[in-house]
Amino acid sequence: MSFASTWADLAPVGRADDGGYRRFAWTAEDHTLREWFAGEASSRGLDLVTDRAGNQWAWWGDPDETPGIVTGSHLDSVPGGGAFDGPLGVVSAFLALDALRERGVTPTRPLGIANFVDEEGARFGVACAGSRLITGVLDADRARGLRDADGVSMADALRAAGRDPEDLGPDDGALRRIASFVELHVEQGRGLVHSGNAVGVGRMIWPHGRWRVELRGEANHAGTTPLADRRDPMLDLAAFIAHVRNAAAEAGALATVGKLRVDPNGVNAIPSQVTAWLDVRAESESAVHAVLAALAGYAPAQESWTPVTVLDADLADTVVDALGGSPRLSTGAGHDAGILAAAGIPTAMLFVRNPSGISHAPAEDADEADCLAGVDALAATLERLLA
Amino acid sequence: MSFASTWADLAPVGRADDGGYRRFAWTAEDHTLREWFAGEASSRGLDLVTDRAGNQWAWWGDPDETPGIVTGSHLDSVPGGGAFDGPLGVVSAFLALDALRERGVTPTRPLGIANFVDEEGARFGVACAGSRLITGVLDADRARGLRDADGVSMADALRAAGRDPEDLGPDDGALRRIASFVELHVEQGRGLVHSGNAVGVGRMIWPHGRWRVELRGEANHAGTTPLADRRDPMLDLAAFIAHVRNAAAEAGALATVGKLRVDPNGVNAIPSQVTAWLDVRAESESAVHAVLAALAGYAPAQESWTPVTVLDADLADTVVDALGGSPRLSTGAGHDAGILAAAGIPTAMLFVRNPSGISHAPAEDADEADCLAGVDALAATLERLLA
Repeated sequence: MSFASTWADLAPVGRADDGGYRRFAWTAEDHTLREWFAGEASSRGLDLVTDRAGNQWAWWGDPDETPGIVTGSHLDSVPGGGAFDGPLGVVSAFLALDALRERGVTPTRPLGIANFVDEEGARFGVACAGSRLITGVLDADRARGLRDADGVSMADALRAAGRDPEDLGPDDGALRRIASFVELHVEQGRGLVHSGNAVGVGRMIWPHGRWRVELRGEANHAGTTPLADRRDPMLDLAAFIAHVRNAAAEAGALATVGKLRVDPNGVNAIPSQVTAWLDVRAESESAVHAVLAALAGYAPAQESWTPVTVLDADLADTVVDALGGSPRLSTGAGHDAGILAAAGIPTAMLFVRNPSGISHAPAEDADEADCLAGVDALAATLERLLA
Repeated sequence: MSFASTWADLAPVGRADDGGYRRFAWTAEDHTLREWFAGEASSRGLDLVTDRAGNQWAWWGDPDETPGIVTGSHLDSVPGGGAFDGPLGVVSAFLALDALRERGVTPTRPLGIANFVDEEGARFGVACAGSRLITGVLDADRARGLRDADGVSMADALRAAGRDPEDLGPDDGALRRIASFVELHVEQGRGLVHSGNAVGVGRMIWPHGRWRVELRGEANHAGTTPLADRRDPMLDLAAFIAHVRNAAAEAGALATVGKLRVDPNGVNAIPSQVTAWLDVRAESESAVHAVLAALAGYAPAQESWTPVTVLDADLADTVVDALGGSPRLSTGAGHDAGILAAAGIPTAMLFVRNPSGISHAPAEDADEADCLAGVDALAATLERLLA
């Protein structure tokens, strides 16, 4: 199969009229994508295994005899997401395996291709849920009780998808099969545009976290309450958004208010409360802390925190060597690779150039020539690691 | 029936744990309230009529022989609303009728009690939908196509409530039965607190309208997009909220941003767009126009507009005379009384003191003694108008 035809198979799944994707975990779209993954594995004679969290693994060789080299990514998306974040790594994995076979490579150890479930956390609010569950970072009871925007629990969503929510939990068997993990991903920035390379190698994943801020006011009638008598949390929101941007600029960090909830959200009602979610990331943990310190007056409540993830230096050197040289990149985006690295698995990342740098939006893109260069780089990396 | 026992019958309907009410048009809660209204009419031997919009009318006497004096209000609420906005006028109407009968008043013309449907417009976005429909101000086709937050059209909501959406339309027969209309309402401000009166008489309803502002940005990944490369509409929102408040203060108007929609509303996504709704009211239309002019750069799109409503001066004089003197109040809140007044029906309003001035929130309140004074004032007014 060519890259173009494989890519075309996935293109329509969960695509809206504006080109944005909505591929949430355990939905009908996700089911279609999982069936596609199973079909690609089957057509190549790979063994399909599903772990306790529902992550899919397609194996060439038996990883219970010798731990294998694993590559892959995820197929789910954020709301209104792009086509490349996730699927590029899965499609490239299958095509790199095809390239190794065409070259007549005989692996000395198994090769696995992974599809991690619910990487974006778009439905239940916890990113990298599939890898966090099998590594025990996300508690199974907590996961089962997470609810989506319609109030559906992850447990009920799993049941509706034909899975038993009691299966959720740490899966040492799945982890023991992984000797090393290599994730290929579209770049979510313009580092490779500036350096003029199609492909780069990951150095580290920035520390990042999410916080919730509750701005309380007093609900009242918009048509009858004098301005002087109002306690309008919308005014506090305006100040908060400006403070967040200033604090990020001063600390050299990234900070974003991307999600809001307004209660009661009526045109003619002064809100009783506005809830704002804050995403902060930086190259150093001290810069993240500086942003939070500047916003301490808003009492931000931490919802998640991921420390800095330094990817395996020896493995990265091996990858760079296999590529005959390559720029090294740090990223502010979280990935399943970071969760596996934190669990002690030697992990590397490859990035493919993104002309606009835009991600999590329909404009997310990569030239086909660069995607093919990514497949070549991944094949060269795997060939070296399997030798 | 006493005021307290009648009030207690309504208290549990649609009440949340925090004391706020959610009584949206054509829901199960609304059905319960409509059944209650029908029961109160029946127990008093009144004739129940439902007009083309679904407004309920309980008649003492035959309004098709002689047009009658009508009083009443509405039973629906905003989300998280208070107990008094609407129901106080309906409950007071029934008790004032009881008082007239106890006194042995023999009316020279019919007396009607009205329950207007969907006054708040909380479900379908158009306030005073019931009175706007029968007066032809709201087009029936437009009304049928309005959708609630779950995407349910008013047509489907009517069908689910056992009504035929094709019935919607102007209802001259219903309007011809009204000689004059008197609406009693809890005050949504502290005018009567300051003047030291339990009851006041309405002078005018401020001009008011709703506008929508779309702030467009560029969706992108919150973890990888440098601050300098962002087009983040959340920053525009912060500036807009501050501009709205400043423009209102300068013009001596009220302006509120009470409702927002963020797309895609993900914690780790710079939004592609933020939509903000703006409510502006003032004693004069020129003050409203001054606010809109100051915000012209945001290209606000008008969603509704109600010009100033001057209530009937002769009728107000009659009411003040019947009460033996009373303060006169203007209000920034829209009412069905304003829609009927604009349709040429002589209309008056009575207001009952609200200690906090808070409305559209659980803290909305009125002392029982003031509610009883409201019933007395309404009975005295009706007795004068029926003589």
